[in-house]
Amino acid sequence: MSTQNLPTGARDIALAVQRGDVSAEEIARAALDRIAERDAEIGAFTDVTAERALGEARAIDRARAKGATLGPLAGVPYAVKNLYDVAGLSTRAGSKINAADPPKTADALLVSRMATAGAVLTGALNMGEYAYDFTGENAHYGPSRNPLDTARMTGGSSGGSAAAVAAGFVPVSLGSDTNGSIRVPAAFCGLYGLKPTYGRLPRTGTFPFCDSLDHLGPFARSVDDVAFVYDALQGYDPSDPVCAARPVEPVAAEIAKGLDGLRIGVATGYFRIDADAGALDALERAADTVGAQQEVDIPRVAEARAAAFLITNAEGSTLHLERLRRHAADFDPETRDRFLAGAMLPASWAIAAQRFRRMFEETMRGVFAQVDVILAPAAPTHAPLLGQKTIVLGGREVPLRANMGIYTQPISFVGLPVAAVPVCEPGALHYGIQVIAAPWREDHCLRVAATLEAAGVDRRA
Amino acid sequence: MSTQNLPTGARDIALAVQRGDVSAEEIARAALDRIAERDAEIGAFTDVTAERALGEARAIDRARAKGATLGPLAGVPYAVKNLYDVAGLSTRAGSKINAADPPKTADALLVSRMATAGAVLTGALNMGEYAYDFTGENAHYGPSRNPLDTARMTGGSSGGSAAAVAAGFVPVSLGSDTNGSIRVPAAFCGLYGLKPTYGRLPRTGTFPFCDSLDHLGPFARSVDDVAFVYDALQGYDPSDPVCAARPVEPVAAEIAKGLDGLRIGVATGYFRIDADAGALDALERAADTVGAQQEVDIPRVAEARAAAFLITNAEGSTLHLERLRRHAADFDPETRDRFLAGAMLPASWAIAAQRFRRMFEETMRGVFAQVDVILAPAAPTHAPLLGQKTIVLGGREVPLRANMGIYTQPISFVGLPVAAVPVCEPGALHYGIQVIAAPWREDHCLRVAATLEAAGVDRRA
Repeated sequence: MSTQNLPTGARDIALAVQRGDVSAEEIARAALDRIAERDAEIGAFTDVTAERALGEARAIDRARAKGATLGPLAGVPYAVKNLYDVAGLSTRAGSKINAADPPKTADALLVSRMATAGAVLTGALNMGEYAYDFTGENAHYGPSRNPLDTARMTGGSSGGSAAAVAAGFVPVSLGSDTNGSIRVPAAFCGLYGLKPTYGRLPRTGTFPFCDSLDHLGPFARSVDDVAFVYDALQGYDPSDPVCAARPVEPVAAEIAKGLDGLRIGVATGYFRIDADAGALDALERAADTVGAQQEVDIPRVAEARAAAFLITNAEGSTLHLERLRRHAADFDPETRDRFLAGAMLPASWAIAAQRFRRMFEETMRGVFAQVDVILAPAAPTHAPLLGQKTIVLGGREVPLRANMGIYTQPISFVGLPVAAVPVCEPGALHYGIQVIAAPWREDHCLRVAATLEAAGVDRRA
Repeated sequence: MSTQNLPTGARDIALAVQRGDVSAEEIARAALDRIAERDAEIGAFTDVTAERALGEARAIDRARAKGATLGPLAGVPYAVKNLYDVAGLSTRAGSKINAADPPKTADALLVSRMATAGAVLTGALNMGEYAYDFTGENAHYGPSRNPLDTARMTGGSSGGSAAAVAAGFVPVSLGSDTNGSIRVPAAFCGLYGLKPTYGRLPRTGTFPFCDSLDHLGPFARSVDDVAFVYDALQGYDPSDPVCAARPVEPVAAEIAKGLDGLRIGVATGYFRIDADAGALDALERAADTVGAQQEVDIPRVAEARAAAFLITNAEGSTLHLERLRRHAADFDPETRDRFLAGAMLPASWAIAAQRFRRMFEETMRGVFAQVDVILAPAAPTHAPLLGQKTIVLGGREVPLRANMGIYTQPISFVGLPVAAVPVCEPGALHYGIQVIAAPWREDHCLRVAATLEAAGVDRRA
């Protein structure tokens, strides 16, 4: 099979490898070649694990030669945000400080699950320092650049995770999302992503940011590939104390159900006030496509966002207190100031925010008694230019880093599952839509996402 | 039946009323007479609900006359700490500020359960302001005085709850315990008490102090009466979001099992360092009585106590922030300074304390794999004199209010059930022992408590 005829999607690769149409090694070499060729420009990877990739690929080819049954992701190349432990690498979490840690001796749990499923790890991916970021820029390792327009940001903090998939280096990647760090980069890079329900995927072996808000999830170029990988990642594990003891609930086979029976609402009020014209158009287009008629005005969303902001700032700063004391000069200046500010927050603010969280969970329970899915913008605008420090929201110029998550933060605040869907007018920049469902209903998110994808809302040209 | 021959224990009263040996009204009048006669000296009650008591008592007598089956607590007089809502009364929670609130229109859930069981409410009881107290003193309503020696403190914050039972006004009372507020007054007043597992008894309709640490529970003069009342209080209710959806697990019938099969340890290390000679003697006597041989040195208990202290200070202050802003002058000076200090704690301290709490829960799970019950002192000393501001711990003079809970705080911190058992050398002052068990094993606490009681460790003369 010539390189240009190789399958590019995760499911297609796995099927081709399982059938023997192509070897896993051939697939891996092609991915490593693409990375070698173009990642200097893109800045997606901080570590390329070429040797491991070829080793894993050859093991799959050997297993196939022996007639063994291959895993569902046999031969699928992927890479992980560099806050996932990878045996043999230090877990940078986007920082210079952690880069001095000894190499890990074991993989993160989800990396192990990918390996068990037959996927092939090509490396660790760039990210905003300690995940406190919406830009994808990084003072230590340079920015990840948006493959759709390299003068622009990928968004963050899972910037490398989005860049690696959008550049075509790998069909899928894993990221993390505390306040929008999967949903914002997916939006800016024209990708699909899934932030599952809080507690669904165990975070064992990943470097935390804000324990009560941290989620892991995949990026891909199609809804089917998101679902395909997500199904391989699922499963309870007690090593993460917040992981829910729920059965695996596979979603890939659910997607075909389409919209049947789903009550779909469109977020209004807070979710439209600061959105630019393109973001509003994208939301309207998505709503029209799925025939969403009901407007949903979630009460007290602005407070939910403020509370998420405070909890993140306070919990994140607590995590880094010793590093701030001993290594303040080694932080990225863009995160250092925010962590220092968080270290000075009063306890009463964080506690009031936690108390509000419990009320807002109740509020959202009530909302999901009325609708199954809510559509909302992923960000108020499209990918900004690299180096840009501010955005204009509702006529006011405000700091970009602190405000790009206004629409994502209140949703992850209460752990709701969200699929990120790219929407694009021909020739224009991408916007992203959040497809939000009730807890544990990732199937609802992905059924609506697949319907939007099938209607072509993500087509750029 | 002449007044001096009336039964005095809760179970005995209920049986006598059910049999018709005595009327509930007669019992209620006798209780009200005792209160009228001597409570000016003791200071247990802030509100006497004489009319309600007589009404409830007469209703029981009428029901009996009609041949109806009476509740298990038929005719048993009781009273509640004035942080329980009582229809028609403002819920003071020991404060002057709340006394200006409109009267409540409904009873707290546990008061309703007592009424359903046939108990007769005689009033609301004095307490330390907003439960932030270990003395039983109160700047607004005067101190509750220890019936065993009225120059001494009852302990707090459920000071009136202990005084009302120790003075013989009522056979049982309800209190609350956030850091020791049932266990310390039980110790000082020579009573039995139960702080059930966190999440066992719903707190609906009570004024909170620190939501993540607040427990409700009963006081009585015998283990059997504690169990008897506790069984009537049990039952899941979703109106308190932390109430566990567990079945009622009656304990009164379990007590007869005695020590059979129980592995009993004695706390050492932290729990002995600052205890005075009398507290150590009491612990040794209790341990000898039940043949406890294993010493249990719980790791990191001092940190658990510090973390409980911080969480209480931060959560409590957050609750009162508006009152501190608007009504600072109306606080008891003894609590105002502590609440103000809490309002200035950094969030990172409270968050680090919460994180430690999860670790300490694991630690205690490990400890209870080795033993079923742990004996520990309830307080480092006996009841101090009223007005005393400091105690000496390990040779250092330290503030009394902040330090009387050193042995109780680390236990409630992780919600373990504890029975309080009084131990007394003839003619001396009482000490208290905590009988601590694994979560949901109130039966273990009470079986050991009953064995100690049967051996006479509480006998004063």
